[in-house]
Amino acid sequence: MKRLTRAETAAWLKSHDHYRILTHRKPDGDTVGSAAALCRGLRAMGKQAYILPNPELTPRYSPFHQGLTAPEPEPGDILLSVDTATAGMLSAVYAGLAEQVALAIDHHPSNSGYAENTLLEPEAAACGEIIYSLLEELGVTLDPEMADALYVAVSTDTGCFRYSNTTARTLRTAAACADAGAALYSLNQMIFETRRLSRLKLESYMTEHLELYGGGRVAFCLIPAEVERKCGIQEDDMESVATFARNVEGVELAVTMRTEASGGTKLSVRCAPGYNASALCAAFGGGGHAAAAGARTACPQTEARDRMLAVMKEQGYL
Amino acid sequence: MKRLTRAETAAWLKSHDHYRILTHRKPDGDTVGSAAALCRGLRAMGKQAYILPNPELTPRYSPFHQGLTAPEPEPGDILLSVDTATAGMLSAVYAGLAEQVALAIDHHPSNSGYAENTLLEPEAAACGEIIYSLLEELGVTLDPEMADALYVAVSTDTGCFRYSNTTARTLRTAAACADAGAALYSLNQMIFETRRLSRLKLESYMTEHLELYGGGRVAFCLIPAEVERKCGIQEDDMESVATFARNVEGVELAVTMRTEASGGTKLSVRCAPGYNASALCAAFGGGGHAAAAGARTACPQTEARDRMLAVMKEQGYL
Repeated sequence: MKRLTRAETAAWLKSHDHYRILTHRKPDGDTVGSAAALCRGLRAMGKQAYILPNPELTPRYSPFHQGLTAPEPEPGDILLSVDTATAGMLSAVYAGLAEQVALAIDHHPSNSGYAENTLLEPEAAACGEIIYSLLEELGVTLDPEMADALYVAVSTDTGCFRYSNTTARTLRTAAACADAGAALYSLNQMIFETRRLSRLKLESYMTEHLELYGGGRVAFCLIPAEVERKCGIQEDDMESVATFARNVEGVELAVTMRTEASGGTKLSVRCAPGYNASALCAAFGGGGHAAAAGARTACPQTEARDRMLAVMKEQGYL
Repeated sequence: MKRLTRAETAAWLKSHDHYRILTHRKPDGDTVGSAAALCRGLRAMGKQAYILPNPELTPRYSPFHQGLTAPEPEPGDILLSVDTATAGMLSAVYAGLAEQVALAIDHHPSNSGYAENTLLEPEAAACGEIIYSLLEELGVTLDPEMADALYVAVSTDTGCFRYSNTTARTLRTAAACADAGAALYSLNQMIFETRRLSRLKLESYMTEHLELYGGGRVAFCLIPAEVERKCGIQEDDMESVATFARNVEGVELAVTMRTEASGGTKLSVRCAPGYNASALCAAFGGGGHAAAAGARTACPQTEARDRMLAVMKEQGYL
């Protein structure tokens, strides 16, 4: 693996002509928007560029790849990946191509170096920030479609500029998108403001059934599978569901539980500085970061809750 | 009234030495943050500057004026107002001073010209954008406290960059705040992410009692006074409550109702392009903008709902 600078990456992209872009499993706004902007940018330079279709693309994001996809790479096509930390994270349909990625453009500090060349900027909040800087380096003028795609990339990876990864660079990238004609308002409405009734019903359930401990510092939210069914929940509706209890005023440590198809329980832990979500999840064989971690257990939700309460007492949180 | 350019305003501010800053009734993040940043900026220039205390300041925003207030203007003090469109909008405790405002800095297109001099930039999403540009013009380097105050101003007036008034200038102002050390994440958590249980309980009620018409395009949300009491609602909790029903997927036209102390009903209408909220409210003697309007009526909520449904039919929306 060779680590490239932004200038080296630009020179390298100029020196080839046929590109295919790969996105990651469970495609989010960052991988989708980064791929679309890069594809359009390469085309604006006169290159042939396509995105390989990702079968997991949700209806929300599929319009951004319209007119940009081609099913199969042809011999001689150069494979690029965006926002993808490991070969295993590439969409499963690309499995046979993972070894042939010539350039990975990524912002994950954990990037494994699976590609021949890597442009890695771990300080970027979103891969979209890197794509924007790269297009600038390449002399590509943003058109409104590229601007929309990049805005989706940077806004979704930062929770519309609310998460702790947001920096001045994130906001300036968004400003450049606005200047280039990105439809900020309608994108914000579509992605952040519009709420499905099914999700609202779930939040209503969570509010009514929130369990508070430790004087309201600790919250548990148990979501039975039949409640998900009753609310008409689809997987799209569950985005950031684990932060719901964490954001209740006074709550510093929140555990959200869902029941998996197997009948086991999936725990998601979110917490304020001073707590260690990862250490709590380790007691269940899980892990993650200090502020956000997860675990799985075969036992039902109420039993998992009681076990987690015991772990919290052991670790001095209750 | 004399309209000043930004450069003229800067020269004028340099030419005086003692300032008192006035904020508007029901102070929001923009008037509070603009006043704080301007006050600190003038002090950084060696001027004497204070904010006149606003008795309606909520606990959320009062920390931003700590150490900056002085109770009474002294003879010779120059009065400045920020984010205030008319003399009547100034906090009631300043009523005797409204005629003496020497400079109004504002972004409301409807500014009445009540001040001797006015710096009006109606294209600015927030008054905070104007204060930032003015401090730049004055050669003031933002310190973290000014940056926090300006970030609060621009983020609150744009719904954290989601409303349709957000522009590239808004995002660049926020980026400059980030560069100067604004605590973006903790401000975002405090203002936008943290949710009071009382508000969540109200949203839970609204979700369960949402009335849909016209195949889900039209929504009514009736909030009885006893529900507000039962949820433990304070006035702070009602911020943007009218957009709740509007943001439900599929809803294009939403009416939210509260009962006033008088027993009458207050209607808030929010709608998508193609509807006219102002025309609907005019039928009740109210008004506003095409996308957001309001009205009051003496009749109870259910009767107001039935009358509004009739008005919607008359106006071709149902």
